[in-house]
Amino acid sequence: MPSPEALLTRELGPDRVLTSPDALLAWECDGFTVHRSRPRAVVLPETTAEVQRIVTLLHGERVPFVPRGAGTCLSGGPTAGPDAVVIDLARMRKVLQVSLVDLFAVVQPGVVNLDLTSAVAAHGLHYAPDPSSQSVCTIGGNLAENAGGPHCFKYGMTREHVLGALVVLPDGSLARLGGPAGARAPHELDLIGLFCGSEGTFGIATEITVRLCRDQQSIRTLLAAFASMRDACRAVSDIVAAGLVPAALEILDQATIRAVEASVYRAGYPADAAAVLLVELDGAADVLAEEAEEVRAIFAGHGALRVEQAQDASERKRLWKGRKGAFGAMGRLNTDLYVLDGVVPRTRLEQALDGIAAIGARHGVLLTNVFHAGDGNLHPNISFDGRDPEQTARTIQAGREILQLCVDLGGSVSGEHGIGSEKIDHIAMMYSPTDLEVMARVRAVFNPDGLCNPGKVLPNRSACAEVAKWPQMTARVLDAEAGRP
Amino acid sequence: MPSPEALLTRELGPDRVLTSPDALLAWECDGFTVHRSRPRAVVLPETTAEVQRIVTLLHGERVPFVPRGAGTCLSGGPTAGPDAVVIDLARMRKVLQVSLVDLFAVVQPGVVNLDLTSAVAAHGLHYAPDPSSQSVCTIGGNLAENAGGPHCFKYGMTREHVLGALVVLPDGSLARLGGPAGARAPHELDLIGLFCGSEGTFGIATEITVRLCRDQQSIRTLLAAFASMRDACRAVSDIVAAGLVPAALEILDQATIRAVEASVYRAGYPADAAAVLLVELDGAADVLAEEAEEVRAIFAGHGALRVEQAQDASERKRLWKGRKGAFGAMGRLNTDLYVLDGVVPRTRLEQALDGIAAIGARHGVLLTNVFHAGDGNLHPNISFDGRDPEQTARTIQAGREILQLCVDLGGSVSGEHGIGSEKIDHIAMMYSPTDLEVMARVRAVFNPDGLCNPGKVLPNRSACAEVAKWPQMTARVLDAEAGRP
Repeated sequence: MPSPEALLTRELGPDRVLTSPDALLAWECDGFTVHRSRPRAVVLPETTAEVQRIVTLLHGERVPFVPRGAGTCLSGGPTAGPDAVVIDLARMRKVLQVSLVDLFAVVQPGVVNLDLTSAVAAHGLHYAPDPSSQSVCTIGGNLAENAGGPHCFKYGMTREHVLGALVVLPDGSLARLGGPAGARAPHELDLIGLFCGSEGTFGIATEITVRLCRDQQSIRTLLAAFASMRDACRAVSDIVAAGLVPAALEILDQATIRAVEASVYRAGYPADAAAVLLVELDGAADVLAEEAEEVRAIFAGHGALRVEQAQDASERKRLWKGRKGAFGAMGRLNTDLYVLDGVVPRTRLEQALDGIAAIGARHGVLLTNVFHAGDGNLHPNISFDGRDPEQTARTIQAGREILQLCVDLGGSVSGEHGIGSEKIDHIAMMYSPTDLEVMARVRAVFNPDGLCNPGKVLPNRSACAEVAKWPQMTARVLDAEAGRP
Repeated sequence: MPSPEALLTRELGPDRVLTSPDALLAWECDGFTVHRSRPRAVVLPETTAEVQRIVTLLHGERVPFVPRGAGTCLSGGPTAGPDAVVIDLARMRKVLQVSLVDLFAVVQPGVVNLDLTSAVAAHGLHYAPDPSSQSVCTIGGNLAENAGGPHCFKYGMTREHVLGALVVLPDGSLARLGGPAGARAPHELDLIGLFCGSEGTFGIATEITVRLCRDQQSIRTLLAAFASMRDACRAVSDIVAAGLVPAALEILDQATIRAVEASVYRAGYPADAAAVLLVELDGAADVLAEEAEEVRAIFAGHGALRVEQAQDASERKRLWKGRKGAFGAMGRLNTDLYVLDGVVPRTRLEQALDGIAAIGARHGVLLTNVFHAGDGNLHPNISFDGRDPEQTARTIQAGREILQLCVDLGGSVSGEHGIGSEKIDHIAMMYSPTDLEVMARVRAVFNPDGLCNPGKVLPNRSACAEVAKWPQMTARVLDAEAGRP
């Protein structure tokens, strides 16, 4: 019997099936460097038919497999166990169709996020979700993770921009999820919405239809430095309370500012500020002028130390440079960076940041905070030396406590990075066993054998086979008296 | 053994369990009057715990049940077979919580759509999705049907406004779908998005958390009458192509205008026009003034016969009166009205309307068209006498052909009314057997016994029990060569 690797090589040729340990090193982890594991092989398909043949073959051989985009995920989503084959979609990077009238594009999963925008920019269009990694991350990975980004406060996450997909299911069969492009979404079970954010555990999208957005007429970017994080957070609350809907509302804390200013991402942020708040407004030029005045008045009301306003595209780029480069700059602080993404209601930001600082101090870890303040999506980042097991253990423990804090404040363990392997033990902070059982059973419809990206998103269940009955929890719930949770 | 009715009466008392044929008459159908059937009983719960007890009891007795809101559905969704019990949620109409800071409300399912807006209007807030039936339809029904409305062109359908729900599953157990309110949606399988639009076949939401939207600073409503439908459609395309995003873009055809003007909904629309186009702009006042000029120029470019612009709230109300009352006005044309809601890409509107007229002529049916032009969501309406079986059969046949036309033009069979029982044979126009099998299996996770609203949305399958394996379609699909559908 030939091995699965030999069969795959017969399909794709030796250049597109990697098995040597050295070659596999690049697929050892994603941006969550705590979990590392080298897969048994990596394959590089170029067409839907190839993906189908690979999946059919691996499914038949009972070999687990893990789809992967650019590997910029921060929760271990595309990290494969030693028994699994990585299906790397990087070579599937064609934009298959663009409709300038009905405003959509059909792309292969390996198309880089920013490349899609570049492909339509001349027509005054863009693809809206903009993760920090947008210059390298792929639309397929964005779909799997329901990726967010700074501008998702106004424009919504990936789920709101994906219209449909052609999907190779985990047994190799093909389904078209979502409806025809260019028309109001059809009325049926929202399988494409469900697929989006399933973190590669439902199958592999090989053609993705996404909305294109028209560029706004004008953009104003403002930056304010504050003497305290409290002032910055309250300015955010006031901006939202005033009915303004900025395209982005981002905060960097002092530790982040210092890291940025000491790095190649230097943006001229005032190094003595306790917090920097970046506000981007977009829309009609004359409205923006008024709105910018409103924002400046709110800044002043909270004692802003310094306010800058970009006068042109290059200044705008400079103001954003520090924010976009923040994660890179943190690379200076230690060998590894653990980027958390807990969420709290916007009105609990101050309280959350105080609690996070206390947790960091208690565990003696180096914390920086840079976050999407508009929707309460925190990014507490812990810099650590991954070669030191004790330091790594403290980092992971501090992370767990931070996420518990977010849940306790009425938030959630993840806003945009996914659960992956990183938070697989944390999802139970938010969901009851019944809730998780529902999710596991829904997943088992798509992935009944558990071969597609195993060990991600949901805690392990004893058995996936028996999906016909609900747990016998009815009596317990009735006793507990329903209504308010 | 006491009957299920007797057991229900023991739970709720005789006043809240209806079984006499006369009493049941009001539950015989919804807005899709072709399908009529009197349920075996109607129960009227008031709390989550009561809903749980009812569902647990019926599930234990293997009695099918059908949740129902106001019954304004247009696809037979809440129409129950003679063996089923209707769980009517009309008494559950409390607004449980409103957050003016984090902008959400928690409501019981029987809260009327417009009542929620009224409850928060003093704070400058509203609930955005606005079906024509908003003065009577309920949030629970809107959730079940993923309801749309004229303003969904800009603001999105119900799915984009529902954050989470407490759900009584079809076996009586309780699950919380979606995340905490007031924060960016958490990252996990989007079960609340999936539940939304499942047409009452996944369980019963007893507490629903919805987004509240801030009122826009200003609103401008314009109405133009055109000499041809073609001119009206092209004006819509030009408005969208110009980058304008009106809150609503509605068209009424000549037959509708005449019906409206002959009714109590008389709005002063020019009775000789072939089409009336209603455009509503919202946003900052000074921008609206400019945008309104742009819209007027586009109207003029397409030879508008007459243009009106509302100067105040009462004029705005008058311009909308005919549109909001269109369905009521059609009541004058015959005893019954079949309201279709096929969708086509906006650029295919003219072609679709020509085809619809031809189908109507061929079958000799009376057709009127009033539709959400912005997102290509048609409402071809056939007035007929439901007491005449031959006329009814022609009506149904014309409807089927119209929906097939929509699909052929790259659209779908339903934009907002749901599949229900009406279009259960039509959904296969859009989806392959594999696609439908995926949907059926996902539903079987929530509703494995098929007791919850049976016979809706998806065509009957031979057996729901065997859900562990995919159909063996792999070879067929591989042979067909994947890629472009």
